[in-house]
Amino acid sequence: MQAEIITIGDELLLGQTVDTNSAWMGDELRQKGVAVNRVVSISDRPSEIKSALDEALSRVDFVLVTGGLGPTRDDVTKHTLADYFDTELVLNQPVLDRITAWFEGRGLKMLPSNRDQALLPEACLVLPNPRGTAMGMWFDTQRGGREKVVVSMPGVPYEMKGLMVEEVLPRMQSKWSLPIRYQRTVLTQGIGESFLSSIVHEWEERLESRGIGIAYLPAPGQVRLRLSATGEHARSLVDDAMNEFLNQAGEHVVADEGMTLEEALVAALGRAGANLSTAESCTGGSIAARLTAIPGSSAVFEGSIVAYANAVKINSLGVDAQLIKSHGAVSEEVVRAMAEGARTRLGTTYALATSGIAGPGGGTASKPVGTIWIALASSNGTSSRCLQLGNHRGRNVARTALECMGWLLRELRSA
Amino acid sequence: MQAEIITIGDELLLGQTVDTNSAWMGDELRQKGVAVNRVVSISDRPSEIKSALDEALSRVDFVLVTGGLGPTRDDVTKHTLADYFDTELVLNQPVLDRITAWFEGRGLKMLPSNRDQALLPEACLVLPNPRGTAMGMWFDTQRGGREKVVVSMPGVPYEMKGLMVEEVLPRMQSKWSLPIRYQRTVLTQGIGESFLSSIVHEWEERLESRGIGIAYLPAPGQVRLRLSATGEHARSLVDDAMNEFLNQAGEHVVADEGMTLEEALVAALGRAGANLSTAESCTGGSIAARLTAIPGSSAVFEGSIVAYANAVKINSLGVDAQLIKSHGAVSEEVVRAMAEGARTRLGTTYALATSGIAGPGGGTASKPVGTIWIALASSNGTSSRCLQLGNHRGRNVARTALECMGWLLRELRSA
Repeated sequence: MQAEIITIGDELLLGQTVDTNSAWMGDELRQKGVAVNRVVSISDRPSEIKSALDEALSRVDFVLVTGGLGPTRDDVTKHTLADYFDTELVLNQPVLDRITAWFEGRGLKMLPSNRDQALLPEACLVLPNPRGTAMGMWFDTQRGGREKVVVSMPGVPYEMKGLMVEEVLPRMQSKWSLPIRYQRTVLTQGIGESFLSSIVHEWEERLESRGIGIAYLPAPGQVRLRLSATGEHARSLVDDAMNEFLNQAGEHVVADEGMTLEEALVAALGRAGANLSTAESCTGGSIAARLTAIPGSSAVFEGSIVAYANAVKINSLGVDAQLIKSHGAVSEEVVRAMAEGARTRLGTTYALATSGIAGPGGGTASKPVGTIWIALASSNGTSSRCLQLGNHRGRNVARTALECMGWLLRELRSA
Repeated sequence: MQAEIITIGDELLLGQTVDTNSAWMGDELRQKGVAVNRVVSISDRPSEIKSALDEALSRVDFVLVTGGLGPTRDDVTKHTLADYFDTELVLNQPVLDRITAWFEGRGLKMLPSNRDQALLPEACLVLPNPRGTAMGMWFDTQRGGREKVVVSMPGVPYEMKGLMVEEVLPRMQSKWSLPIRYQRTVLTQGIGESFLSSIVHEWEERLESRGIGIAYLPAPGQVRLRLSATGEHARSLVDDAMNEFLNQAGEHVVADEGMTLEEALVAALGRAGANLSTAESCTGGSIAARLTAIPGSSAVFEGSIVAYANAVKINSLGVDAQLIKSHGAVSEEVVRAMAEGARTRLGTTYALATSGIAGPGGGTASKPVGTIWIALASSNGTSSRCLQLGNHRGRNVARTALECMGWLLRELRSA
């Protein structure tokens, strides 16, 4: 089963908008066993839309169209599709009621152009969009004796995603009897893809013959591992294989499914009845910023001393000035004193500290750029580790923040 | 003049990679007066590449191809292009020397597949790529009596961008005598696009008749304004119009050209010989994290007390506990005390403070979600402001950080 995606909008061609929809749709479709053959971005001229539809329908059976719907663009895609499929626009009363309720619920005034959004092609199946005022449209058609489908959705990512998950994918699945697919994902941290793969090498080698697919989805400092299978035994196949993986490499796993490391850490601190503070030099507050981005983090996160200058390390964290003089700010001794200072002064169960040379400048022969000390203080004492990272400031900061959070999360799991 | 973009790679269709290259190229081409007609993403099968080339060359004169170059993919694009243009691959000695030097400079071992990257189509003009081992290729061809060009570049964004700026755009400009275009951009902060536009309404109305293009490029809490013109008088037209804009709305401008607000603030603090600390509650360290992301920020940024919990406000910033009890943590009184506490304890020229309800929970009737107090302390005393933002936690934090930084930047400019 093959599909193509057509994205409509001058803003895509002018470079004002990056098309993130296609990648998301490609991933969703692939998970359902549907291969995307092409993605085509075009302007919102009717002639362009029609020729792109002709071409796509000549190659594949399923065409997904996004964009060009909405009151300010005069619904160019809707008018063009009505014309293309030789049908009339008719007032759809349930949709009009829905749009009216949408505006009333937000206390907004409804414009005539919004009312016009309830005019929809007679020949299509209307796919309700509870997130906005432009509906999805599903057109069944024929080409060369084959049944084909064109679906049109608004380009606003969260509206499109809602329509895909709630309307389009289930209908595709039933129309083309797509195989049932089951998958599980875990997030690992602190181990590269190739190292992770080498730990579970023998297990991984046997997956294919068992009908289980594996994917490593890397991100800086983290790797997401996904197992998937299709068919009636998909769930038990994947669950068994995931349990085997967890037995062999579970120590590197920090979160399940769509959870982020930050969310997993906030939840784990909550379960442990513990709280946290940070003392951040090279990470400059980004551990604090990542944690406080999670709603509810105030229950477990007390605060941070961002001690960028040595004077702040001394005055606000109580680091001994002599320690900095003897060992330098980027040292095991200082990072441990920072963690202990934060833990004592902010009165928390745990404290994490960072001090390093994030780059691009500031490196020396003995402490090159990317030398970063981290420490974790708790009632069991203080531990410290040295990371040797690269030359990229932003990546060094992100990696260090992830290493710190992953470290504490593993500590909480083993406690 | 019209162009099309073909991006090659299964990872684009599988949803593993978001195509950011096309938007960047679209913007660059538009600035040179070239309109992108289509963007097509295809798999790296030779037959797909050839049919996409046929189709694109039937529509436009200039086709940009990215991706499918590189040793691990066996250079599928290169072999396909050689076949398509009916030419042989020949060893290019200067390119081999360049690749050898690239590996030697990095202390890496050169594989046979890397050596093969010096085999290049005889019929093309090789475009040197100092950032990697896959070269750019420029093919001149003919279709229906018209001169046409196909350019192939690697898909790695920074290699592609380097080739575009250094090789492709200058060659396009001279081959098609593209008009000279001049543009200037400024970054405004703290004012929405429609409010900004209303301030300069009369000026904006007259721009078109003067041959000057204007674009508002919005981002959360910030708007970039771009003026552009083409032709021999482009520079003076744009400079004059920009000066008029700055006279009318200059107080909202925080940075020039590609500079970010953070970079402008670090530079302005440096010029003033001043330094900064922050006391962050609802922003949770993100002002500190944004500033310390700028290399060299350590010269002007001392640190931050991220006082998420009230105890940290009291113990690490010296806020009077009674003040919190009487007015609540989200109050003018407390945010002023936080700013003053940071300025005194961290010993800085300026201190910024934030305290608010970022959401989604925590709002009350008198202090709904989005109520955020900010304060700026300096030797001239302390000022405070209340922001009424929305319900989205992440956007509230980002907006607050930008408001704070923009406020201090304007303060520094007027000092």
